[in-house]
Amino acid sequence: RSAEMAKLTQLIDNEVFRAYATYATIVLLKMMLMSLVTAYFRITRKAFANPEDTASFGKGESAKKYLRSDPDVERVRRGHLNDLENIVPFLGIGLLYALSGPELSTALLHFRIFAGARVAHTLAYLIPLPQPGRGLSWAVGYAVTISMAYKVLKVAYL
Amino acid sequence: RSAEMAKLTQLIDNEVFRAYATYATIVLLKMMLMSLVTAYFRITRKAFANPEDTASFGKGESAKKYLRSDPDVERVRRGHLNDLENIVPFLGIGLLYALSGPELSTALLHFRIFAGARVAHTLAYLIPLPQPGRGLSWAVGYAVTISMAYKVLKVAYL
Amino acid sequence: RSAEMAKLTQLIDNEVFRAYATYATIVLLKMMLMSLVTAYFRITRKAFANPEDTASFGKGESAKKYLRSDPDVERVRRGHLNDLENIVPFLGIGLLYALSGPELSTALLHFRIFAGARVAHTLAYLIPLPQPGRGLSWAVGYAVTISMAYKVLKVAYL
Repeated sequence: RSAEMAKLTQLIDNEVFRAYATYATIVLLKMMLMSLVTAYFRITRKAFANPEDTASFGKGESAKKYLRSDPDVERVRRGHLNDLENIVPFLGIGLLYALSGPELSTALLHFRIFAGARVAHTLAYLIPLPQPGRGLSWAVGYAVTISMAYKVLKVAYL
Repeated sequence: RSAEMAKLTQLIDNEVFRAYATYATIVLLKMMLMSLVTAYFRITRKAFANPEDTASFGKGESAKKYLRSDPDVERVRRGHLNDLENIVPFLGIGLLYALSGPELSTALLHFRIFAGARVAHTLAYLIPLPQPGRGLSWAVGYAVTISMAYKVLKVAYL
Repeated sequence: RSAEMAKLTQLIDNEVFRAYATYATIVLLKMMLMSLVTAYFRITRKAFANPEDTASFGKGESAKKYLRSDPDVERVRRGHLNDLENIVPFLGIGLLYALSGPELSTALLHFRIFAGARVAHTLAYLIPLPQPGRGLSWAVGYAVTISMAYKVLKVAYL
């Protein structure tokens, strides 16, 4: 059993895999933060999606008016969905890339630029910054993922 | 080749990894169930999103009236999206956590509480239960994921 | 260190894992393509979700009219969300399935049918094809994922 464990921990002892573990966890935590930001705006803007969420504001019509959409809430939700659309590919392709034997420095470059781009994307969405701020940060993360996918397909398929 | 296979199956033979495989599959199947529940409500409430989905109800105006949103359909869809937002972090962070060498009993505790919390969240959303039922079940799953992320970062980064 | 690397690359040298890497990357790239299709329709239909995205069309009221939803944009977005709902389970369950020691031919059959079904689903959504075209392609991908989940639970749990 301890030999088996040794095998397993070899994965997390590998430097590239450890870098992946670190940055994948960071971008996932950043994405999870969007839930808290959504909750914050729903409560401060009093804009909810479910009747049971407004029950504490009173009964009947007085609570019903809080069942509404709010521009700030919708903005955070769009940012959250954009995270899902872009972080899911990073998680899957990044894991396979980490297992494809890249140089540590190259892998770190990919992971760090992706994580930085997604943090920039969130800031650009929430502040909000004028375009092309948000568009560029999105494109950088997208390009990094494509670059890793290219390496995975080259190693796995050819 | 059989030696190589033996290496691979060591991963699934490891008890912690096997626990992860079991609970990750269970929460993903639970999430997939939301598609069937959405389809059930779309058909019984006759509320569709695409013109081609209403073609069997007749032509032109008579079918067009079924292109509408329905509170029950929207409720299931919100539950489905909340699953995506929370189960994706669990999948990624949970996998890295399983590879970080936790005690089996600690890992099982994390995986089981998360899976239970997500089942409770779905029930709270669909019945629906009064708040803070849904909020608490969401928070428990969230806290479990944060706890695993802390362990991953400690092992991977420090 | 090179011995450690050898261990790691064994994973990507394994034929079943390499097949998973290839098809997981393909379906993720397909999903990422939906972002570009959304951007294409947003720009050609002039239908945006954020005020800062319409700033290049002028100031004030003249730009505000482009803050609207468009049927073609919404159609692509529904297809993108459906991808997330179905490709996330494939990624997670497929990875565990690839590690559960299936026959290469059986694994390839699962991965190829899933990838084909998702490409067909996207075409059925975007053209759009009359039902049950889209429904069937969705169901095929769903059934393949259930089949892999069954194998994972059998190997991991029993």
